[in-house]
Amino acid sequence: MSHPHPELGPPPPLAEGALRIVALGGLGEIGRNMTVFEYAGRLLIVDCGVLFPEEEQPGVDLILPDFDYIRDRLDDVEALVLTHGHEDHIGAVPFLLRERSDIPLVGSRLTLSLLSAKLGEHRIKPETVQVTEGERRSFGPFDLEFFAVNHSIPDALAVGVRTPAGNLLHTGDFKMDQLPLDGRLTDLPGFARYGAEGVDLLLADSTNAEVPGFVTSERDISPVIDKVFDKAEQRIIVACFASHIHRVQQVLDAAHAHGRKVAFVGRSMVRNMNIARDLGYLNVPGDLLVDVKSLDDLRPEEAVLVSTGSQGEPMSALTRMANRDHQIRIEEGDTVLLASSLIPGNENSVNRVINGLTRWGAKIVHKGNALVHVSGHASAGELMYVLNMVKPKNLMPVHGEWRHMRAHANIAKLTGMSDDRIVIAEDGVVVDLHKGRARITGAVPAGYVYVDGTSVGDVTESALKDRRILGEEGFISIVVAVDSTTGKILGDPEIHTRGSGIDADAYDEVLPKIADALERAAADGVTDPAQLRQLVRRGIGRWVNESYRRRPMIIPVVVEV
Amino acid sequence: MSHPHPELGPPPPLAEGALRIVALGGLGEIGRNMTVFEYAGRLLIVDCGVLFPEEEQPGVDLILPDFDYIRDRLDDVEALVLTHGHEDHIGAVPFLLRERSDIPLVGSRLTLSLLSAKLGEHRIKPETVQVTEGERRSFGPFDLEFFAVNHSIPDALAVGVRTPAGNLLHTGDFKMDQLPLDGRLTDLPGFARYGAEGVDLLLADSTNAEVPGFVTSERDISPVIDKVFDKAEQRIIVACFASHIHRVQQVLDAAHAHGRKVAFVGRSMVRNMNIARDLGYLNVPGDLLVDVKSLDDLRPEEAVLVSTGSQGEPMSALTRMANRDHQIRIEEGDTVLLASSLIPGNENSVNRVINGLTRWGAKIVHKGNALVHVSGHASAGELMYVLNMVKPKNLMPVHGEWRHMRAHANIAKLTGMSDDRIVIAEDGVVVDLHKGRARITGAVPAGYVYVDGTSVGDVTESALKDRRILGEEGFISIVVAVDSTTGKILGDPEIHTRGSGIDADAYDEVLPKIADALERAAADGVTDPAQLRQLVRRGIGRWVNESYRRRPMIIPVVVEV
Repeated sequence: MSHPHPELGPPPPLAEGALRIVALGGLGEIGRNMTVFEYAGRLLIVDCGVLFPEEEQPGVDLILPDFDYIRDRLDDVEALVLTHGHEDHIGAVPFLLRERSDIPLVGSRLTLSLLSAKLGEHRIKPETVQVTEGERRSFGPFDLEFFAVNHSIPDALAVGVRTPAGNLLHTGDFKMDQLPLDGRLTDLPGFARYGAEGVDLLLADSTNAEVPGFVTSERDISPVIDKVFDKAEQRIIVACFASHIHRVQQVLDAAHAHGRKVAFVGRSMVRNMNIARDLGYLNVPGDLLVDVKSLDDLRPEEAVLVSTGSQGEPMSALTRMANRDHQIRIEEGDTVLLASSLIPGNENSVNRVINGLTRWGAKIVHKGNALVHVSGHASAGELMYVLNMVKPKNLMPVHGEWRHMRAHANIAKLTGMSDDRIVIAEDGVVVDLHKGRARITGAVPAGYVYVDGTSVGDVTESALKDRRILGEEGFISIVVAVDSTTGKILGDPEIHTRGSGIDADAYDEVLPKIADALERAAADGVTDPAQLRQLVRRGIGRWVNESYRRRPMIIPVVVEV
Repeated sequence: MSHPHPELGPPPPLAEGALRIVALGGLGEIGRNMTVFEYAGRLLIVDCGVLFPEEEQPGVDLILPDFDYIRDRLDDVEALVLTHGHEDHIGAVPFLLRERSDIPLVGSRLTLSLLSAKLGEHRIKPETVQVTEGERRSFGPFDLEFFAVNHSIPDALAVGVRTPAGNLLHTGDFKMDQLPLDGRLTDLPGFARYGAEGVDLLLADSTNAEVPGFVTSERDISPVIDKVFDKAEQRIIVACFASHIHRVQQVLDAAHAHGRKVAFVGRSMVRNMNIARDLGYLNVPGDLLVDVKSLDDLRPEEAVLVSTGSQGEPMSALTRMANRDHQIRIEEGDTVLLASSLIPGNENSVNRVINGLTRWGAKIVHKGNALVHVSGHASAGELMYVLNMVKPKNLMPVHGEWRHMRAHANIAKLTGMSDDRIVIAEDGVVVDLHKGRARITGAVPAGYVYVDGTSVGDVTESALKDRRILGEEGFISIVVAVDSTTGKILGDPEIHTRGSGIDADAYDEVLPKIADALERAAADGVTDPAQLRQLVRRGIGRWVNESYRRRPMIIPVVVEV
């Protein structure tokens, strides 16, 4: 099992007849999935998603893959295949299209519809190529075949890539619900046929590789929702992902069966459900839907809200209800159903929402106390099926952190793959498929690119480091005016501080010392502002550390007038 | 079921013959447990713990209860009972003793030993009263009886408080392991006897009230640890809480049985295990222990490390091993056993540690894939036993967030308690026990008191708000020097910025505009520095928001020379 070492250098030129695979995101992390395939100078990209920031990236809105590796070769891109419509697979497309707007976007009907709505918000009209499962279509040297896969959004695809260097299968995100709501099964027979033809490299979803067994069917949630509706005596509020059309369908069906009306709450929920309904992915019985404004006309036992906010997002409707900061007032006896996963990192926010709702008397149903969520990703048992059906010559686990990719590798070994046919790569690691063998040959930069407000890439690691210090300790700024000709200090040093938690009066103790030190320096003929700044920084820094055991950022400002 | 409303005002004077109960911490949160009992002007305190900050409290080291409610009455405190030695029950004692150093501290042998070691670090020599289960002892009007309880630290106690106003039972943290490692069972017969005498108010641990059933015995972890030792071919590193003496005992026993040596790593682990060994709570076979420095002399298959860092604390040995920043280098084949809970809020840190260790080839065993942790808190099934044995006239759920306290109340209702005998209170809510009934009568301030570095309470909510803004957006400071007599601008305005992610060159665009605006203001005779600052703040603020859609903190500085 080969895995990268920190000392990996730039890769050698790609050997003739070889295929190069570089993930710019999605390996060693859950999110910003993007894989670049290169053959004979031509490029194919699969997915182009975003990663959502953690507390390590304060103030950042989104994290993009670094496009630098392909920036000079965007004209060589034959196509960008989008496996499905989740943000971590399509979210970075607007940013890539800013650099070349006519890259052909290849995907299923729903995927392209969701993507086009998003691109419309960015005022981009893309070139799209709609495909469907079973279809084959070539883009330059890449001969693509699309396979239906089941996931937590309809119309997801895996993609087979035939090249002169060998055949690949990229699963995208998938699982294998054997009783899917829409009857659209993951195409195992297709995988088997393609495997029989010979798959040289399998790239497969590792997200749930640590989870033993099989994912329960989405269908099994339905009786649980039904039971919640049976018991509820007041309003029902369901929070789930705005893209989980099948989950919403089950809620609509339950509402219909129980004679309740439904209102959608939250911009993305309203938008996506409109698209899904228009395209026929969501089936809405006659007069089931009402506007959120007309909820007041309904009795509590007639109303259902389907809302975003299942991850405790601060501005979401659900969080505002928990804080009594929303037109919908939670009352004793309301039922809140959190019909979604709990994305790692959101535990505290969701917990705060649950406590807030509980405080107002709501009863909370969540995945911790009822089967109201099933994962969208194949568990270990399902991954074994795929490995045994496809019988790939090489495996590259994708979509996962180290722990998940390694667990996936262990599963492959159990199925009989040998260690040296399994490549665990990180973002930017270059994998070359040559003469039937996949090997790591180097690495290219694949760091985080931060979106903050309207700017992309302006916020750097160094700015984030400053934010972390400022966020933990605040700052102290000392402004000293100096006569530029005589070097004499003019007036008293001035203190400006925020977040340091040190009382303004406290500085009376240290400012005279700083003034003295500056006077002495001036007397010694020191006029270099850098030296004076250093003097101030040290004086204040030592005082704060000794008196308070803290390390706020210290900004000495010497104004020469 | 009565629960507080935001409009609660100050309580009326305590009625004659009544007992007042005010929790200054631990209700509506997990941590900083502290409950104050008042009868006839005399006070009894049970526990005095700290809460650990979340990302909402950046830079804060610890959160204390607000002592303000009792600050003027510290001389009326008869005793401070410590139910056990965990930080969330004893961590704030040094800070309370700063205000009155001779408050009698009442607790079991281990609790007082751990507390004294801690107070020694603060150079405080406390007044202590060592008690043991079954003992009865009066402090003013409070007649105390101590009951053995089982918890995730040895020697924990529940306390019965007999007063002329009625009898209370405060469980502290507890569970009911029926096969405890030390044979010391939670004293249910004692609870039953006290219940038969008549318990007017039960205050009981709600932490696990949402968890159905019963906590597995600590003893059941032993065969799992054994299996890990059987399989491990290289080093074994066990991370667990430094106070979980029974967990460590099981690791020592396994190491002994497998012919391995053990080194303790981490200051608190070394300190606590020394105390536990000296007092006989930890049984260490002959030459089992080695110094961490002599680990290099052992073959990997002979070595076990027992370390802190199970919560992914950034400076802990385990985190540093994951980052290859520690003398112990993780190698392919090492086994890391995370034998602890995952405290909510620490998921990301622990996940990063697991990924880091996995990257170097370690195999990770944790509560997600093996029974290597059991909780220290009674589950719903156990809480029912206590309710049915004690048969309290009133219940006040303690130690829990809203969701836990409400779940506890629901359990009590199942056992037949009527709604109006259950009091769900928050921190600071005043509960009076009068004529056999517990009722909410008001509220007193019970906010967070922050410890940051050496200072207590200097860091306020407003400083934290500043930190949050600085941490998300950084700041821009604009320094303008003004002639104090003429009001004329001297030199050019100067920009200092950190964390804003806006390139220094970008300011060339806005600085001339600011200078112009200031010149015009000067021409109009505006010399008030506050007005000039406002002018600068608006000019920069509007520019940043329009150009970048961001809101950094803006600090205009006008220096008059």
